[in-house]
Amino acid sequence: MPRLIALYHPPEDPDAFDAHYRDVHMPIVARYPNLRDVRLSKPEGVAGRPSPFHLMAEMVFDSEAELDDALGSEPGAESGRDLRNFASAGVTMFVAPDEADA
Amino acid sequence: MPRLIALYHPPEDPDAFDAHYRDVHMPIVARYPNLRDVRLSKPEGVAGRPSPFHLMAEMVFDSEAELDDALGSEPGAESGRDLRNFASAGVTMFVAPDEADA
Repeated sequence: MPRLIALYHPPEDPDAFDAHYRDVHMPIVARYPNLRDVRLSKPEGVAGRPSPFHLMAEMVFDSEAELDDALGSEPGAESGRDLRNFASAGVTMFVAPDEADA
Repeated sequence: MPRLIALYHPPEDPDAFDAHYRDVHMPIVARYPNLRDVRLSKPEGVAGRPSPFHLMAEMVFDSEAELDDALGSEPGAESGRDLRNFASAGVTMFVAPDEADA
């Protein structure tokens, strides 16, 4: 199932970031049409290096068409606008389509 | 289940990258002890921007202890050395532990 993946860069104030994500951003994301699941994880570094990301959010859909519809929806636009309120350190986003052969 | 995630930056020669990944790197990764699954996907851009990554590899383990053991194993070291043979554009790696609350 295709995923919209957001990798949030380490914020200056992690507690404020987490509170905003939980209390403001997540309720917007939860309104995406046809959203099947959201997986949140707190990345950890490898081989003694710090993690390049503070939070990974994976938003799961049944199809790429439904993922595109969600991005174009009113909650999709609102979540994009909300990024400026808590993600000033940056966010890297991409779509992971269904599994590929190497 | 915890995942070791590798995000490969866009290579100069995608066909050569894909061939090396499939024919050389993946067989090394497949020898990681206690590896439960490998998911490969070819990231796509969002909102008209190009994807920041060429390939996402997710290596799934039953526990973080087994993930750490795999990284410290002989195939773990060999896969690290092999990066210089095909991933000169760079790779961003991190561990996604079990799902977190926001």
